[in-house]
Amino acid sequence: MNSSFPSALLENAVNELARLPGIGRKTALRLALHLLRQDEEKVTHFAESILKMRREITYCSVCHNISDRPVCSICADTTRDHSLICVVENVKEVMAIEKTMQFRGVYHVLGGIISPIDGIGPSDLEIVSLEERVKKGEIREVILALSATMEGDTTNFYIFRRLQASHVKVSIIARGVSIGDEIEYADEVTLGRSILNRTPFDESYKLMSK
Amino acid sequence: MNSSFPSALLENAVNELARLPGIGRKTALRLALHLLRQDEEKVTHFAESILKMRREITYCSVCHNISDRPVCSICADTTRDHSLICVVENVKEVMAIEKTMQFRGVYHVLGGIISPIDGIGPSDLEIVSLEERVKKGEIREVILALSATMEGDTTNFYIFRRLQASHVKVSIIARGVSIGDEIEYADEVTLGRSILNRTPFDESYKLMSK
Repeated sequence: MNSSFPSALLENAVNELARLPGIGRKTALRLALHLLRQDEEKVTHFAESILKMRREITYCSVCHNISDRPVCSICADTTRDHSLICVVENVKEVMAIEKTMQFRGVYHVLGGIISPIDGIGPSDLEIVSLEERVKKGEIREVILALSATMEGDTTNFYIFRRLQASHVKVSIIARGVSIGDEIEYADEVTLGRSILNRTPFDESYKLMSK
Repeated sequence: MNSSFPSALLENAVNELARLPGIGRKTALRLALHLLRQDEEKVTHFAESILKMRREITYCSVCHNISDRPVCSICADTTRDHSLICVVENVKEVMAIEKTMQFRGVYHVLGGIISPIDGIGPSDLEIVSLEERVKKGEIREVILALSATMEGDTTNFYIFRRLQASHVKVSIIARGVSIGDEIEYADEVTLGRSILNRTPFDESYKLMSK
């Protein structure tokens, strides 16, 4: 497709768009031609919003989440419970948990997960800063909310051991059969875990009727 | 998802990315976070290539294809046959035909197709400029290469009638069973057309062995 481009400007834009994850060359061409049909003002807005985001976004000095200010809106919110820290991998997980509206504590964003295959070790993540937060502040509980994968489990275990000296309560989000799932089709590991971690019915019922 | 964004800068970028065709909000967030992880220099390059394309691209004054210069590289190429015009809908079709390396004439890009549903009439397309090109120049043949749809057929027929006064030869690309297709699975309209428009075997054989 390369040599048949009628314009180097178009070709450059297509090359750049095709670098985005999940965008192939055909889609990139479709996107470029779409942008070409838009008003110049709209395209300027599009390009500048991306540039501005990359140049001006910063990270919260407390929880390391993406933020527009030195301290993010969650960490600055005095109505939240600052003694309850939920440890997550990235900003996406913060957004997912915020959407549930079930958590009124604060977060700690690791910026990844321990993954030897990808060359990511504990020192690449915000684990030391988590330890310092726990040592310094009046932290009641740390909730680990990492993916239920081998990497997630490794990271959970590593953090758990690093926090043992602080005698803080460390918990982990419940793993079990998803709500709406049929038992018959649940995978056996999840099903097994959901039996081991069973909840007293009256507690569970109270949660449901909340 | 809106209210849970940790940063207005991120939210703006996601909103802009989600305006692209075929990009939903989840994909837009994934793209924005990807761009956030890139070097600032790379993101600047990305945004500027799109801005530059939109601001500086122009259209060829002869064939109306996208171009970096007032006359595109195809129209400026003196080794091509300028008496043979292939009429296409858009730049994508020029690129597709160029890739076949079977056409050494020049193009005329309509910029669309007659489509009353979308409010596109003949006056919205480069049809008058095609008539003028045919009247003015020594044009031997006009090849219609529009989509084999109702809109394409309507446009073909409209152009054919407008060019009748010029007594130029007007042809249309062959419609038939695709190469590699099994007859059994070809749709009946295409199969019927391929029988009506059958080619003498020795002519077809000559083309194949080219």
